[in-house]
Amino acid sequence: MKAVIYEGERKMGVSDQQRPAVKGQKDAVLRVTTSAICGSDLHMYEGRTPMKPGQVVGHEIMGVIEEVGEAVTSIKKGDRVVLPFNIACGYCFNCHRGYTNMCLTMNDQNAHAAYGYVGMGPYKGGQAEYVLVPNADFNCLKVPGKPFDEWEDDFILLADVFPTGYFGAELAHVGPGKSVAIFGAGPVGLMAALSSAIKGASEIYVVDFIPERLEKVRQMGATPVDASEGDPVQQIIKRRKANKALQQRLRPGEEKLQGVDCAIDAVGYQARNDRDYSRENPTQVLDNLIKVVNPAGHIGIVGVYIAPDPGAENDQAKQGIFPFAVAEVFDKAVSIGMGQCPVKRYNEYLRDLIIMGRAKPSKIVSHRIRIEDAPDAYKKFDERSDGYTKVLIKFEQSKAA
Amino acid sequence: MKAVIYEGERKMGVSDQQRPAVKGQKDAVLRVTTSAICGSDLHMYEGRTPMKPGQVVGHEIMGVIEEVGEAVTSIKKGDRVVLPFNIACGYCFNCHRGYTNMCLTMNDQNAHAAYGYVGMGPYKGGQAEYVLVPNADFNCLKVPGKPFDEWEDDFILLADVFPTGYFGAELAHVGPGKSVAIFGAGPVGLMAALSSAIKGASEIYVVDFIPERLEKVRQMGATPVDASEGDPVQQIIKRRKANKALQQRLRPGEEKLQGVDCAIDAVGYQARNDRDYSRENPTQVLDNLIKVVNPAGHIGIVGVYIAPDPGAENDQAKQGIFPFAVAEVFDKAVSIGMGQCPVKRYNEYLRDLIIMGRAKPSKIVSHRIRIEDAPDAYKKFDERSDGYTKVLIKFEQSKAA
Amino acid sequence: MKAVIYEGERKMGVSDQQRPAVKGQKDAVLRVTTSAICGSDLHMYEGRTPMKPGQVVGHEIMGVIEEVGEAVTSIKKGDRVVLPFNIACGYCFNCHRGYTNMCLTMNDQNAHAAYGYVGMGPYKGGQAEYVLVPNADFNCLKVPGKPFDEWEDDFILLADVFPTGYFGAELAHVGPGKSVAIFGAGPVGLMAALSSAIKGASEIYVVDFIPERLEKVRQMGATPVDASEGDPVQQIIKRRKANKALQQRLRPGEEKLQGVDCAIDAVGYQARNDRDYSRENPTQVLDNLIKVVNPAGHIGIVGVYIAPDPGAENDQAKQGIFPFAVAEVFDKAVSIGMGQCPVKRYNEYLRDLIIMGRAKPSKIVSHRIRIEDAPDAYKKFDERSDGYTKVLIKFEQSKAA
Amino acid sequence: MKAVIYEGERKMGVSDQQRPAVKGQKDAVLRVTTSAICGSDLHMYEGRTPMKPGQVVGHEIMGVIEEVGEAVTSIKKGDRVVLPFNIACGYCFNCHRGYTNMCLTMNDQNAHAAYGYVGMGPYKGGQAEYVLVPNADFNCLKVPGKPFDEWEDDFILLADVFPTGYFGAELAHVGPGKSVAIFGAGPVGLMAALSSAIKGASEIYVVDFIPERLEKVRQMGATPVDASEGDPVQQIIKRRKANKALQQRLRPGEEKLQGVDCAIDAVGYQARNDRDYSRENPTQVLDNLIKVVNPAGHIGIVGVYIAPDPGAENDQAKQGIFPFAVAEVFDKAVSIGMGQCPVKRYNEYLRDLIIMGRAKPSKIVSHRIRIEDAPDAYKKFDERSDGYTKVLIKFEQSKAA
Repeated sequence: MKAVIYEGERKMGVSDQQRPAVKGQKDAVLRVTTSAICGSDLHMYEGRTPMKPGQVVGHEIMGVIEEVGEAVTSIKKGDRVVLPFNIACGYCFNCHRGYTNMCLTMNDQNAHAAYGYVGMGPYKGGQAEYVLVPNADFNCLKVPGKPFDEWEDDFILLADVFPTGYFGAELAHVGPGKSVAIFGAGPVGLMAALSSAIKGASEIYVVDFIPERLEKVRQMGATPVDASEGDPVQQIIKRRKANKALQQRLRPGEEKLQGVDCAIDAVGYQARNDRDYSRENPTQVLDNLIKVVNPAGHIGIVGVYIAPDPGAENDQAKQGIFPFAVAEVFDKAVSIGMGQCPVKRYNEYLRDLIIMGRAKPSKIVSHRIRIEDAPDAYKKFDERSDGYTKVLIKFEQSKAA
Repeated sequence: MKAVIYEGERKMGVSDQQRPAVKGQKDAVLRVTTSAICGSDLHMYEGRTPMKPGQVVGHEIMGVIEEVGEAVTSIKKGDRVVLPFNIACGYCFNCHRGYTNMCLTMNDQNAHAAYGYVGMGPYKGGQAEYVLVPNADFNCLKVPGKPFDEWEDDFILLADVFPTGYFGAELAHVGPGKSVAIFGAGPVGLMAALSSAIKGASEIYVVDFIPERLEKVRQMGATPVDASEGDPVQQIIKRRKANKALQQRLRPGEEKLQGVDCAIDAVGYQARNDRDYSRENPTQVLDNLIKVVNPAGHIGIVGVYIAPDPGAENDQAKQGIFPFAVAEVFDKAVSIGMGQCPVKRYNEYLRDLIIMGRAKPSKIVSHRIRIEDAPDAYKKFDERSDGYTKVLIKFEQSKAA
Repeated sequence: MKAVIYEGERKMGVSDQQRPAVKGQKDAVLRVTTSAICGSDLHMYEGRTPMKPGQVVGHEIMGVIEEVGEAVTSIKKGDRVVLPFNIACGYCFNCHRGYTNMCLTMNDQNAHAAYGYVGMGPYKGGQAEYVLVPNADFNCLKVPGKPFDEWEDDFILLADVFPTGYFGAELAHVGPGKSVAIFGAGPVGLMAALSSAIKGASEIYVVDFIPERLEKVRQMGATPVDASEGDPVQQIIKRRKANKALQQRLRPGEEKLQGVDCAIDAVGYQARNDRDYSRENPTQVLDNLIKVVNPAGHIGIVGVYIAPDPGAENDQAKQGIFPFAVAEVFDKAVSIGMGQCPVKRYNEYLRDLIIMGRAKPSKIVSHRIRIEDAPDAYKKFDERSDGYTKVLIKFEQSKAA
Repeated sequence: MKAVIYEGERKMGVSDQQRPAVKGQKDAVLRVTTSAICGSDLHMYEGRTPMKPGQVVGHEIMGVIEEVGEAVTSIKKGDRVVLPFNIACGYCFNCHRGYTNMCLTMNDQNAHAAYGYVGMGPYKGGQAEYVLVPNADFNCLKVPGKPFDEWEDDFILLADVFPTGYFGAELAHVGPGKSVAIFGAGPVGLMAALSSAIKGASEIYVVDFIPERLEKVRQMGATPVDASEGDPVQQIIKRRKANKALQQRLRPGEEKLQGVDCAIDAVGYQARNDRDYSRENPTQVLDNLIKVVNPAGHIGIVGVYIAPDPGAENDQAKQGIFPFAVAEVFDKAVSIGMGQCPVKRYNEYLRDLIIMGRAKPSKIVSHRIRIEDAPDAYKKFDERSDGYTKVLIKFEQSKAA
């Protein structure tokens, strides 16, 4: 079968791989219909992780069950499913409490596992025609309909970016009537904006540099903030101050709340410098989060911070250690949550919003390609050129097979 | 000044009353611009409470501050405010923990206080040109704009029914992607539907008998269920079973979830019999809630249950005691929350949704009247005739004054 | 092997049964070392459930793993484990959210499953020398030490009554500094008292009639309230009023808080009449809960309410429907939670308290017997005679085998 | 009246000051019976804040109400009260939601106010014979008994350190059966240990260098970890690994949980270097927190981080910016909460634990002095010499007055 592999820094390939078969009795094999390229795949692509060449990548995967092991009881051949990117056992101390992002048993090296990702265990990726699903009863989300129907491109986003954006909103305590600032209008930032709307936020600001992405922000019903026009924190504060109704509702003292209740990092450690988009500044977003959040506010970080980072500028940064305004966070009594999303905690609810027509996340999809075009798509997505925002690899050929 | 008073069973009047003045240093006087008639006022109107004749009624009140006591610091003459219907001290054990619905100090007789309501302390109602606001720093919600602007009819709903509907959704644990059944499409039920949408519910069913109200349900983006067409619980279950996508997503065993996650009572003790709308059946909604809710689901009761009820059919009912399917609730491990809404916990957030254009609760307003027409409006509202759903008393004359 | 079976109303037997073997690949077989008789077993014993004769009973089980299926990965032969009484799949909509008490897949008839209990699926009980453990990776709690060590009698209580008492405290929102009233000083009530102490309650009152049980209350560090001395609600209120320090701390208005913050039902539908212990009064405890709880307080019900109840006094009661003071609960804005305990949510934490010497639940154990004596023990436990509070069946003979 | 004032770096004095009188109608005047010196006072003492000379200090205050303004309704002359260190209005957006630590109205400069502390508004401190209490209805905790009774030294700790330690445990999600590591065995660390015990933690490790403090840890029922004996994180892990029962309970994969569930910083920015107690290392505790916490664990920071810090080693540190292992926190999906404690959220509950004999925080008090001895006590407390852990200033002379 065909699969996308990492061949080295800034070089992806398409390779012939052995088609997987059920090994353990709890396994399943999935015939992939759609697999997406994730912004976090670009960290590997750029050589900013210790990924080894030759690995099959891809952790956003959906398709049709081809085969199940004898101990699998909840799904069967022919079922249409989306795979949460986290691979989890379901019974360890973390899993059964809902922390499937911190499963203790599926990866000997660390407390999390995923498909086709560095440091996340021995699992092959799903940018491939087939993928092996371990512990299939726990690791499949059943979805209605048929392959390539009108929901296919919505459902694929349930594998990672929609729940991850939602998790950002959770960590930032987004709720009805709250104000939210989101840094980054890539897929996760846009999904954080959609999730903030679903959760009833009253104001949603999304910061980015790229015009196409700012346009998508608008389509999500949120307010775009163009960082190329100046300090985005100040822009948000100014915009709020310019809203007469927001100001008139304040009683004396409450003008200390010109920032937002909730701040979300949807960028991670490869953040760009606000004053010069061409340069990285790994703490740019962290700094902005802390500045923009109100006293007693909340910060959620779902943009990825990975160490070791061979490409970082200095020794501390290589270890993922960054200057952090602890005293300011303390002064404001702000809480911070971060980490990979426990997809299973949210994916059923988000699926149902799609089914009932209350969420249409696929608006963010910019490109649909064949697997042969994946290496080129990585390149363009990495450059943010040609409006590349979210790329889906389509395996329609499999359909015929 | 003019004020609406209770004159006896099914008889309201408009009376001349002394205009209030600041007495305590923490008081304020409000010039009322809009005051609403609440469904709970009808319990008094119908003689279903121990209300004594001669009282000024009305607990949904907004207007402009006319005068403040010397110890008031957060609002001043000219501020536009909405009053939460609960009167609260802000510092007792319950208030400072957010239970302003259970304030211990503002009513000697019981742990709650309100304007113009039986059993809720000595406070005069606000269906009047002016009203005294006790402890004004704590009991005013500041709102932007000017009297009678495009938000007036939205803001007035912040006094009670919008937060109360929202509270129903809170108690029922409504959240993103959940399914909700609401019994009653009066103002509180409609606001529970709006609130469920704000909170991201995927399915919202609202049960009623009255065509105009079912039409409003549709306008709120929810699904009307006409109880006159048969058992509403069965209707909801059938509708869910008929939705192919909802069914296809179920794994074996999950077909036990054909009811809803969240069930809300927005009717209270004067519920009608599902099979004969002309008869009361105080447990009709309670029975339905318990039947429709799924295992591990949640029930919220914001429809009012008051005792003593002189008009009830039997001795137990007169004391507010009703047959309740405890074993079924236990079997399903369902939680139940109920009571008056702590308005202050939510009203700022809901106000901001209005300001930012994300909620337009005034869609439910059916009638805008002058105070002289209040007695007639009570009658029609009580009959649910002529589409009476939500009546606002407008004090435009005060504007000129 | 030997096993305890239900032979009919008020008649248990010890029968020879086929020793279980692993069937499914996810199964395990447990050699039982200790199995307890639960108060809820008495509902079956008394013929107050639709239980059919011939069934092996017992859902409080611990022992040593004898054999595991091929797909079991987390436990192995020789591991010492306690079984949560709920049998759960771990992956359905309810299980993975932590509601293992409402598992959707392990019982075709209803949303919960257990060992040896009416209406809880086809699973054989564990008052037997061996028991089959379905889905063993999810349904075993690993414990340290060796069979019959100093922790054996503590660990066995992790199967049901300790977590169930704890769940009562959770549902009643017990927390540091709160006041708690518990009705029933049987095993679950005593465990609710212990759990309330663990959760930091400042006042813990436990109501019962039986001197031996009231003495155990004292040993748990809680305050016994002897219902035979008069209305227990009034006793609690009087005791609180008589505490000068508690009274002196109240500010004006706060004297409305003479009841308790948290009220727990640890009795269930076979409650006794407070004025005549010889008579049942199924709503006695419900009535008391509602009276004793403060405004804005919380009620937790873990005493079992089962329907149909062939032994109930009237038709409604037979269906588990009871008069309930809805208006009073509404007036106080009290929340109510109830149902079977999701044991897995708590059992690891409670186990660790035992291991670290911070909880010694086995203080409640009154009798340790051989399986041959089980029928007689049922009888005496049912009569509450001879101090029967908690009976453990010991399978030391198995040890030798 | 006599009062302790800051005279400059490492110099406190006792000065004659004008006795306060009620100014605003919501004010009260308190005759102080006990006032404590807080570890956070030492930051000012050492010149590590921008405090100006001449200010009256002290924010841990209790006594007897001497006089109240006309608008005060809940307390009266003669009432015994403890003052939460945060001064709050009770009605602003933050206060009424429970964030009295972030009150928006009582300090023009920032979102928090307190007695006698730099940057916390114009309020005079309470290491004085009398102190003015603003907004007295909201800012007094009523306590039973009489001045200088057996509870005096417990109650005074309700002003700050007991709730602050408790808040640390809250932020770190301490709960029944969890494992906790606390850095710092000063008053706040010891109170975090007591609070962790109250909250039911199964393991409580407290790290310090000072023998007297480690001895107090033992008295609190927690496990002392002497940092002078080597890396405290490794010590905790080793101790856990050496506990056979803790190890035997682990299933495969769960050995990734050798750290703790909850980690608390009770030291702050003047942390000492673990390898050389004589040197400051502001990130020592932060580093340790991150290392010791388990995947999916929680961190609470109540040790104070203040900026600007004129005494810091480098420019970033002067602004309260420190290197922080963001990637490691992200990798573990850990949440972090920090800030000043909202005392009013907890102080009633903690008071009741004292009254009912379930907490005796005064065990940590090491010295009781007269106000004349305060300057010397600051010096010794700052040196941690002579076992200085918690110093109370007693105003017994006032008693006679």
